[in-house]
Amino acid sequence: MTSSTDFEPPTFADIEDAARRLDGVAVRTPLLESPLLNERIGGRLLIKAEPLQRTGSFKFRGAYNRISRLDAGELAGGVVAFSSGNHAQGVAAAAHAMGTPAAIVMPEDAPAIKLDNTRAWGAEVVLYDRYREERDVAARNLAEQRGATLVPPYDHPLIIAGQGTVGLEIAEQADAAGARLDAVLSPCGGGGLISGCALALAERAPGTQVYAVEPEGFDDTTRSLACGSRQESIEGASSFCDALLAKTPGALTFSINRKLLAGGLVVSDREVAQAMAMALMYLKLVAEPGGATALAAALSGKYDCRGKTVAVIVSGGNVDPATFAKAISK
Amino acid sequence: MTSSTDFEPPTFADIEDAARRLDGVAVRTPLLESPLLNERIGGRLLIKAEPLQRTGSFKFRGAYNRISRLDAGELAGGVVAFSSGNHAQGVAAAAHAMGTPAAIVMPEDAPAIKLDNTRAWGAEVVLYDRYREERDVAARNLAEQRGATLVPPYDHPLIIAGQGTVGLEIAEQADAAGARLDAVLSPCGGGGLISGCALALAERAPGTQVYAVEPEGFDDTTRSLACGSRQESIEGASSFCDALLAKTPGALTFSINRKLLAGGLVVSDREVAQAMAMALMYLKLVAEPGGATALAAALSGKYDCRGKTVAVIVSGGNVDPATFAKAISK
Repeated sequence: MTSSTDFEPPTFADIEDAARRLDGVAVRTPLLESPLLNERIGGRLLIKAEPLQRTGSFKFRGAYNRISRLDAGELAGGVVAFSSGNHAQGVAAAAHAMGTPAAIVMPEDAPAIKLDNTRAWGAEVVLYDRYREERDVAARNLAEQRGATLVPPYDHPLIIAGQGTVGLEIAEQADAAGARLDAVLSPCGGGGLISGCALALAERAPGTQVYAVEPEGFDDTTRSLACGSRQESIEGASSFCDALLAKTPGALTFSINRKLLAGGLVVSDREVAQAMAMALMYLKLVAEPGGATALAAALSGKYDCRGKTVAVIVSGGNVDPATFAKAISK
Repeated sequence: MTSSTDFEPPTFADIEDAARRLDGVAVRTPLLESPLLNERIGGRLLIKAEPLQRTGSFKFRGAYNRISRLDAGELAGGVVAFSSGNHAQGVAAAAHAMGTPAAIVMPEDAPAIKLDNTRAWGAEVVLYDRYREERDVAARNLAEQRGATLVPPYDHPLIIAGQGTVGLEIAEQADAAGARLDAVLSPCGGGGLISGCALALAERAPGTQVYAVEPEGFDDTTRSLACGSRQESIEGASSFCDALLAKTPGALTFSINRKLLAGGLVVSDREVAQAMAMALMYLKLVAEPGGATALAAALSGKYDCRGKTVAVIVSGGNVDPATFAKAISK
């Protein structure tokens, strides 16, 4: 089994290549803007709306970029992934598009919408207990048994390059909107999305400060960036940001992020819920908890947007109606 | 005072002219699609996402198309409008863009989000009692007192032409998606949006059947189309579709709709609430009750989408969080 540290980080050319591959397959999601929200924060806020992506999150980009490169023999063997739910749907949809079978190892307490939609894309869901098993071990074993290809959630150059197309689009769309970006804020779990975006922005919007935004207790990337080595999330911490509960930054993603990120920011579940309500009121966009952390940092003042032009990535919108209703009612 | 019956209907050229005027000012909203939703209904559903329009509904289009044509003297006098809330915001934002003062007559029981945002755009809000006063009379009197220009909500050729740009975009975006439209379903209040869209589609997607979708009790256009003359909504009816409580079709809009529409469809508040939940789950789009009637017709089977390609307009997303939470929790 190859370990992620065997991989070289992707280059900007790899992201451009991913963009060509995704053209016409993934959605070029809009960069939204609300003048009333701008007035409220005293700056210019541009919102990259990945809930409008195929499968409701950015994860389809990386999954398709990986799976579409499998050869005929690999496609016949199928793919296996482990995921809290968004990578699951991304892999399931990409496997469906490529006509290869998919089996996904998912936590049994994943949101129903994520379990249901993964199955709706035709994937087999294999449940595991989030608190008792190591999901990556379970997935690796399954892949070996079946002779299937493991599609990792973040620590792979093709996954990172696929997610990096979000950053490429932000740079292009900000240009088209006449905006010069001061900063880009992104939700961060394992670090695939933000590392890809940071690579794209370093090339296409150099000087833009890129920040990772994590939920309280799962600020492993924030602390790792501060001290320069990979740290773990707080033992026993809990958050309703189910998409961002990775224990530690990826080896490959962190090797990129430690060089390119300006730092990390931490938001509370309460600030995230408020951001979900604001996304409803001002943007008409459904954001899931983990997808709304960057927006929460901008709206709560954890990142001070006054006088600045800031793009925030809303990375996903796969949230159960009951969870959503509770969040916006607070 | 000119009556709406003095106006000639707009032509297709007027809609093209409105599109040029709105280019770079209004948002070209995306035409969304969910493969899982397609599978569920057994057809192809394309969703025109007007909640992502400036001010959260299509109304900005018509308001800007009208107000941007006022001369310097008229701009100095300001504008007046009456509205349940979406036209209010559209006029307020268009007036703000053109630097002219706006006063809007609104019902005192309008959703808080609509009242707040109209004021946030700098407009003066004049409240009236929906059950005791005629809002159009109140607005006309106010306009006369102030020497301001009345911007009617639907029965004006420039308003209809502005809203018709929604239909123009649907035709273009459906073409780009390789879709040949069988039908377009649109929410219908006074009929401005659907009449403009029907004019655009007759030229750019001829043969497409266009249906008005109304809430139960407010099916005045549906019954008017059936009998060929303008009927009134049911006395004492109530619905949470606050944007679609017009009593009777507009004279000008109905003169277009009676020639171009295939018919009307009626949905219950319960079907609308279900559509709002489905828009959250599959599209990640916030739809307000009145904005979701056409989607409700497609998803409830009131319009049978099986084997067809159908575009539905979600016309707005201005809904209070509490109302939204209640609707999606049913």
